[in-house]
Amino acid sequence: MSSPHPAGVYSAALTPLKEDLSPDLPVFVEHAKRLIAQGCDGIALLGTTGEANSFSTDERKAILEAAVQGGVETKRLLPGTGVVAIPETVALTKHALSLGVNTVVMLPPFYYKAPSEEGVIAAYSEIVERIGSSDLRVILYHIPQMSAVPITAPIIEALLKRYPGTFTGIKDSAGDFANMQMLVKTFPGFAVLAGADPLLLPLMREGGAGCITATSNLVAADLAFIYRNANDPSKAAEVDAAQARVVAKRTLASRFAQMASLKVLLAKETGHQGWTRLRPPLLPLTQDEAAQLLAA
Amino acid sequence: MSSPHPAGVYSAALTPLKEDLSPDLPVFVEHAKRLIAQGCDGIALLGTTGEANSFSTDERKAILEAAVQGGVETKRLLPGTGVVAIPETVALTKHALSLGVNTVVMLPPFYYKAPSEEGVIAAYSEIVERIGSSDLRVILYHIPQMSAVPITAPIIEALLKRYPGTFTGIKDSAGDFANMQMLVKTFPGFAVLAGADPLLLPLMREGGAGCITATSNLVAADLAFIYRNANDPSKAAEVDAAQARVVAKRTLASRFAQMASLKVLLAKETGHQGWTRLRPPLLPLTQDEAAQLLAA
Repeated sequence: MSSPHPAGVYSAALTPLKEDLSPDLPVFVEHAKRLIAQGCDGIALLGTTGEANSFSTDERKAILEAAVQGGVETKRLLPGTGVVAIPETVALTKHALSLGVNTVVMLPPFYYKAPSEEGVIAAYSEIVERIGSSDLRVILYHIPQMSAVPITAPIIEALLKRYPGTFTGIKDSAGDFANMQMLVKTFPGFAVLAGADPLLLPLMREGGAGCITATSNLVAADLAFIYRNANDPSKAAEVDAAQARVVAKRTLASRFAQMASLKVLLAKETGHQGWTRLRPPLLPLTQDEAAQLLAA
Repeated sequence: MSSPHPAGVYSAALTPLKEDLSPDLPVFVEHAKRLIAQGCDGIALLGTTGEANSFSTDERKAILEAAVQGGVETKRLLPGTGVVAIPETVALTKHALSLGVNTVVMLPPFYYKAPSEEGVIAAYSEIVERIGSSDLRVILYHIPQMSAVPITAPIIEALLKRYPGTFTGIKDSAGDFANMQMLVKTFPGFAVLAGADPLLLPLMREGGAGCITATSNLVAADLAFIYRNANDPSKAAEVDAAQARVVAKRTLASRFAQMASLKVLLAKETGHQGWTRLRPPLLPLTQDEAAQLLAA
């Protein structure tokens, strides 16, 4: 892989569920492989889009194991391992390392709101110390609208200084492009990954490293094309066309609840109805909503 | 116990930590017994004040087991068992039931923000169905400033109708007295428990059931006196004096970060320094802050 690592288009993969709302592992693995075949550099499984926080520790481990055993290269897997309690973040991350999956996407502990920056630094430090592995590579996960715990520049600066080589990038899902520009400029060599599909193109033109996004479940080939050709003037027209398709699909998926909508569209695309299920508190689209979405 | 159940003063017990930040079980049990000796009707362990969401499933189980094995009557224990993922909420609640602890305080799944009311109802329903025990009694936990998932009247109404006898009360920690008044009036027989110490007195005068609060770690006897005498005009002066002490202690503990402050004050009172530790992202007070607090 090129530097910075990770670089490329990573799909924040959806998780298919069986009727009892347990993860459908074979269907998930098939989806992960399809995304890579379509051009994704890897799979950021077990993220917000993947409903990771709705799964138990055991279910999360089973999903990652299925991907590895199903033949997805370990270097292409970026599992989410950050949960509310430090011992469980440590356990999930050690489990990933034990499978040869060294790069993880890590939420900060997210129950207590507005912790101090020192508290967030202390939490990540405690996690890194307890894991105690020089193989570990962490992508910080900045999604304050969901975690309510922003990953600020002082936090990144402190962690880069304290654990050189461990914190290799950030998934910025806040949707604020100015913040991504600031991160690229402030932390050279640190991988800034867009968390929103439409921002991949402008971010690549600013020196970003790629994206981890939800619409990639449906538009992986277009995102891969944008990633590889964003800075090639001779491909500008094709890049713009791909970008227009990405934006259109994302707009469509935002008409109703985004994850439920993506699942309906993926169920249509794959012919597998297991995609339409979600675990509460998230709910599937109503029949009427699904019909409107598919008609649009 | 009187109707509605639970009724009385329940302490949202703090959790002492050892140097390695693991829970100090013997010191916790001693504290729980002291609080009951001081007049608490029971212990609402493993709540927000108890740092429950910073502990692993195994640590949470060990804390509850220590309390039961240490001799705290099971009917006096109200453990928090609501976590982010439904299977783990189910496992923690079944574990409590297996120990004879039938009443739990249950957060809704709290990662996804602003879920629909239908989604929250579906989550609690899924949990109750998976547990499948007629012994189960659930106190809903309304703390939107932390969970970002409010427990609204339509949610309560739906759950009371769907599972009669299961949802027996609510801990209202939002600090909005008008909401508590509305709940008392709207749901007769449903236990409304104040989540903020100063609101116990006015709530008892409106037909509330009691409180689950943090300052009770320091002022249990005063809260118990208020609870038992709130509506006795002949005790008005003593009640007012107790209320003044509760408000003063809570104001003191709110000067710096509340939980860290409560721990410093409890360390002073008990002479045990293990109380001063917190697990990240929460941090202890600085030495300077602690000195200022103790001087005040």
